[in-house]
Amino acid sequence: MTVLDANAPGLTIEAIRAAHERIRDKIHRTPLLRSELLDERSGLQLHFKCENLQQGGAFKARGATNAVYLLSAQEAARGVVTHSSGNHGAALARAARLRDIPAYIVMPDNAPAAKLAAVRRYGGIINLCQPTLAAREAAARELLQTTGAAFIHPYDDLRVMAGQGTSALEILEDVPGLDAILCPVGGGGNLAGVAVAAKSVKPTIRVIGVEPAGADDAARSFRSRHIEPMAQPNTIADGLRASLGAKPFAEILRHVDDIVTVSEASIVNAMRTLWEELRVIVEPSGAVAYAALVENAWSPPPNARVALLLTGGNLDLDRLPW
Amino acid sequence: MTVLDANAPGLTIEAIRAAHERIRDKIHRTPLLRSELLDERSGLQLHFKCENLQQGGAFKARGATNAVYLLSAQEAARGVVTHSSGNHGAALARAARLRDIPAYIVMPDNAPAAKLAAVRRYGGIINLCQPTLAAREAAARELLQTTGAAFIHPYDDLRVMAGQGTSALEILEDVPGLDAILCPVGGGGNLAGVAVAAKSVKPTIRVIGVEPAGADDAARSFRSRHIEPMAQPNTIADGLRASLGAKPFAEILRHVDDIVTVSEASIVNAMRTLWEELRVIVEPSGAVAYAALVENAWSPPPNARVALLLTGGNLDLDRLPW
Repeated sequence: MTVLDANAPGLTIEAIRAAHERIRDKIHRTPLLRSELLDERSGLQLHFKCENLQQGGAFKARGATNAVYLLSAQEAARGVVTHSSGNHGAALARAARLRDIPAYIVMPDNAPAAKLAAVRRYGGIINLCQPTLAAREAAARELLQTTGAAFIHPYDDLRVMAGQGTSALEILEDVPGLDAILCPVGGGGNLAGVAVAAKSVKPTIRVIGVEPAGADDAARSFRSRHIEPMAQPNTIADGLRASLGAKPFAEILRHVDDIVTVSEASIVNAMRTLWEELRVIVEPSGAVAYAALVENAWSPPPNARVALLLTGGNLDLDRLPW
Repeated sequence: MTVLDANAPGLTIEAIRAAHERIRDKIHRTPLLRSELLDERSGLQLHFKCENLQQGGAFKARGATNAVYLLSAQEAARGVVTHSSGNHGAALARAARLRDIPAYIVMPDNAPAAKLAAVRRYGGIINLCQPTLAAREAAARELLQTTGAAFIHPYDDLRVMAGQGTSALEILEDVPGLDAILCPVGGGGNLAGVAVAAKSVKPTIRVIGVEPAGADDAARSFRSRHIEPMAQPNTIADGLRASLGAKPFAEILRHVDDIVTVSEASIVNAMRTLWEELRVIVEPSGAVAYAALVENAWSPPPNARVALLLTGGNLDLDRLPW
């Protein structure tokens, strides 16, 4: 149960704007796709922000790149460390390679081969450990001591959160009249960054978090105003199983309008519709925002202009959930 | 065996530029995606023009929309007719609906349900016929007589070819330093439009057509300089089974540098790589340009800037070829 410190320094729009300048030539400006059919079906004007088409196939490139390039030359020379079984590890390895510094990625020894390959592709140095949080943290601690490298948390880090918020700046440049943004929430770094950026640029906009009902710690925490840990997440959306971080949570409480949950069936259904109608590959975690519209978990007024963050596209094509 | 008429009016860059102005607000300006990994693998700078993300999931929206909006009000009021078992029928139905006129689409009675649904979705009036060319042409003729509608051929039509060429204008606006364009060839309308546009804007650019070895009429015709019909096309790339049209062929002979062929295995392999690395859904016909690079059917100099047209993304996700 974390108590909020009202005086703690938070995430600022200035930090997000500076992040955008810093990473602009190192990431893709991802397209905002439209679909006449999905507009007709929903009675809304939908804008799909395709972070699945981002470098490395996920929005994680934004935060990791910002964090790596914020290090001083001296800090950077010793490299970076993180623990991650997902997209952040690969994104950090890529950012480190761009800066020509080592990246040490602690991963559980039962991580899927595809995730290991993604980190190796970018030259990340993988440290395997047992698949427990204690083992992961111990391995990271040991690496930090032996290398003197900088730890870059996947989401509970203001530098990472600032980077993630840059997608909202791009969305609002492309669609200034936007009414709402739907954003997946796992550890909360992306939702926090997006909310600070969007509300600063356009205070009247609505920012809604979406998470699987089987990993609903953010929705529960949002209502109780305390971090309620997720004991046994049970969802196909592997990118959203993490428990909310304290730094993102503080921003979420200040800036997010609501957090809604979606069923597993809706997530699979949404993935499939996005594949068939938008013709892009979205992983389960990336499809929850559209799932929220499909099951009316959140209902905007007719013809509202709504952006949906499709946050990632990394999945095993031999194991599709249909 | 068609003999070329050197005096026949051909496709002009002015017609393509006018088409671009005409259709600009009725189609998507599709993104040109990059991939660090595919650049590294190929030793080239690759730019993927995502016409699979076009309205209706294929480049066909460009030509059909241009043709429909070139009709006079009087002509348009009587509607449009085509025969098509593929993406052109749906694209024509969509363009007609935008202009609020009827579209009569002749389709074989064994057409896949998904193709019929795509035409119906846009309000197209489907006329089923037996699955032979004779039956198709007879049905179209009868419709033309009874309705007085205008016939819009899928590719052997200068208005359609002009529309297809507009993608090359967008590519060269985005990447003025481009060295080459790889473009699939079936009936030839797209390759002809792209070649006229690209060579007019940048005479030093190389334009290469790509077709399946199992439907190699364009490659054979290109060498013999006569249209050599395709008797029994045998390829997974259903959009490229059509025989070359006379009007496209005239432009292809004037402006295209080479036409190369690719194997079925390479096409499937390319689809899969584009799914996994670019995270977009490409149909077999849309993957042949990348297949040509994979199997070295055409080898540009190292670091060349090459655009590849991913022409469509319509396929049955329950019947993937792997």
